[in-house]
Amino acid sequence: MRERVSVIGLGLIGGSLVRGLAAAGHHALGFDSNPTTRATARTAAAKAPENSRWQVTASISDAAANSDVVVVAVPLPAVSGVFDALAATGFSGLVTDVTSVKGAVLDLAAKHLHTVGQALAGFVPGHPMAGRETSGFTASDAALFKGCAWVLCLEEQTSLGDWVRLARLLTDGLGVRVVPSTAAEHDRAVAAVSHVPHLLASALAGHAANDPLALTLGAGSFRDGTRVAASRPALTAAMCGGNATATKTALDAMIADLQAASAALDGTDPIAALEPWLTPGAEARLAWPPTAGEPQRLPVDAKALRDLGRAGGWITAVAEDHRSVTAVFPHST
Amino acid sequence: MRERVSVIGLGLIGGSLVRGLAAAGHHALGFDSNPTTRATARTAAAKAPENSRWQVTASISDAAANSDVVVVAVPLPAVSGVFDALAATGFSGLVTDVTSVKGAVLDLAAKHLHTVGQALAGFVPGHPMAGRETSGFTASDAALFKGCAWVLCLEEQTSLGDWVRLARLLTDGLGVRVVPSTAAEHDRAVAAVSHVPHLLASALAGHAANDPLALTLGAGSFRDGTRVAASRPALTAAMCGGNATATKTALDAMIADLQAASAALDGTDPIAALEPWLTPGAEARLAWPPTAGEPQRLPVDAKALRDLGRAGGWITAVAEDHRSVTAVFPHST
Repeated sequence: MRERVSVIGLGLIGGSLVRGLAAAGHHALGFDSNPTTRATARTAAAKAPENSRWQVTASISDAAANSDVVVVAVPLPAVSGVFDALAATGFSGLVTDVTSVKGAVLDLAAKHLHTVGQALAGFVPGHPMAGRETSGFTASDAALFKGCAWVLCLEEQTSLGDWVRLARLLTDGLGVRVVPSTAAEHDRAVAAVSHVPHLLASALAGHAANDPLALTLGAGSFRDGTRVAASRPALTAAMCGGNATATKTALDAMIADLQAASAALDGTDPIAALEPWLTPGAEARLAWPPTAGEPQRLPVDAKALRDLGRAGGWITAVAEDHRSVTAVFPHST
Repeated sequence: MRERVSVIGLGLIGGSLVRGLAAAGHHALGFDSNPTTRATARTAAAKAPENSRWQVTASISDAAANSDVVVVAVPLPAVSGVFDALAATGFSGLVTDVTSVKGAVLDLAAKHLHTVGQALAGFVPGHPMAGRETSGFTASDAALFKGCAWVLCLEEQTSLGDWVRLARLLTDGLGVRVVPSTAAEHDRAVAAVSHVPHLLASALAGHAANDPLALTLGAGSFRDGTRVAASRPALTAAMCGGNATATKTALDAMIADLQAASAALDGTDPIAALEPWLTPGAEARLAWPPTAGEPQRLPVDAKALRDLGRAGGWITAVAEDHRSVTAVFPHST
C-alpha cells in the first residue's frame, strides 16, 4: 500500500527514512527547521532516480496537510515543539517518533499532541536501534535500517490498527525488524544495553584522562570500551537523563556487580574468586547477538505481540490484510 | 646487530615474535611445550623465505643453549615453570616476558629465575599491547607488532645495558614503540585501560543476559562495550587477579564515579547534572589516541627514560652505540 508519509527532522535518521520511504514507492515528504538542511535535501531529491524522489516542504503544516503518517525525527528536546505544531494544524493522522526514550515521549504526547478539543492524532512511540558515528542529512542512507531492530510501542491505549499499519510501513520497504514492546519495557532494556554502556564508557575514558602512560598503553579493550564516550555530552545527558529512573536502576545493579568484583579482588585468591564472577558475562556475550529461529505466522493480537517482544523476538512482515504477521523468535541455544 | 633469540611459547604473541625476529634477520629459535604446535611451527618455517626462517627446538634447554636472549611468551600461570627450566639450564643471558602483569612476574623471577648459586640471568619484564580476537600459532603474523606499544620495565635493579639491548631488538626489526616504565606504573596503567575495561564489559554483558528484549535491542554501544567479555573467564581472571591491588584501586575509583552518576540521575534535573559528569570522558576520548610529537634524541639514562614513559612517550629507535635513543613525546593538545 502506498502511504503518504512526512518526516519532520532530516538528520541521519530522518534523512535516511525519507530516502528509504521514497525508494520503497511511498509518497514521501520531508521537513527540517534548518533552511540549509532543507536546501540540501531538496538538491539530493532532484538527483534521486525519478521513481524514488521525495519532496521537501516549507513548513510542518504543509507536510501534515499532505500526509496520513507523520514521523517526528527530531531530538528529544525538540519533540514537544513539533507536537505543538502538529496539534496546531489539527492533524488527525498517525504520528510516531524515533527518540531513544519512550516513557518521556508518551508524556509529551499527552501534553502537546493530544490537545483538548482537537481530533486526536494516533501516537505510536518508536525507536530504531540504528546509529552511526556520523550525523546529519549528508550522512543519511536509504539502506540504514536494513535488518535493524525498530521498537514500536504497543501501550494499552495504542490503536492496534495504527500499530500494524506502521509495522507494515517499516517492514515492507525498509527491511526493518519491528520489535513490539511497551514504553516501560523498552526504557528498561535500552538502559541496560545503551544508556549504562554510555556512562561506563565515559567513566573509563575520564579515569584514564590524567594518566599519559595509561593513554599510550590503551589498546583494543580501551578503544572499544570507551568509543561512545566521544559522543556529545549534551546528547548523552539528554538520553540517559530522559530515562533517569530506568538508567539509575540498571546502573545501580551494575555498581553492585562491580562491588562484588572488587571484593573478589580483595580476597586471598582473587583469580579463583573472579572466574565465576566473569562466567555469566562471557556466556552471554558468546551467545550474542541472538540468531533468528524459524519464521512463523502470528495473529495480530496485542498480548501475543508484546509476548513476542518480551521474548526477544521481532516481526519481518505484515500480511496484506493486516490480520497476521511473520514473527521470528530468537533461536534458543 | 644480529641477535640469537629464543622464544618460548609459540602462541599468537610468541609465534608472531619468532616470525618477526627471523624476518628481521635475527637467529630465531622457537619452542612450545605442545608437540602439535611445534610441528605446525616447523612446517611454517620450512615454507618461509630462505632468509627469514626460524628453527624449532625440541626443548627449552636446546633453545637456551643456542641463544643470548630468551623471550618467555607463555601465559602467566606457566611462567614459573619456564623460569625453573631456564634456571636449571644455567642460562645466564637476557630474559624477558610478555605477560600483562609485571609486578607478579618480577616476584616470580626473584623466586624461580634467579636461583641461588647460579649465574644470574638478567631479567627485563616486558608487555606488548598487542592482542587479537584470534589466538595460537596459526593466527601469528610477523607484522603484528608494527606500531604497537611495548612496555619494557626499567626497575632500580634492571641493567640499563640489558634494557637498551632489548629496546634495540624490538624497535629495529619489529617496528615496535618501546615504552619505558616500571612494573608498578605499568600495572597501575593497564589496570585502568585494560583490566577494569574487561570487568566492566563482563558486568554489562551479564546484566543483559536474562533480558531477551535487551539482547535483541543491543546495538553498537553494547557490541563494543561488551566485546572483551567474550574472553575466556580463566584468562581474564588470571590477568585481573594477577594484578589485584592495582585493579581494585582503579575499579573502586570507577565505582565512585558511577555512584556520582547515579546520584545525578536521582536529582531534580538529571540531564543538567549529567552533562558536566560526562564532559571529562568525552574530552579524553576525543583526544585519544595520543599523537606523536617531533622525534628527539634522548641520552640513555634511567631517569630520563622513566620520565619519558610517565609522560606517555615512547622510543622508536636505539642508536648503534646504545648511548642514545630516538624518543617521541605525545603531542600536547
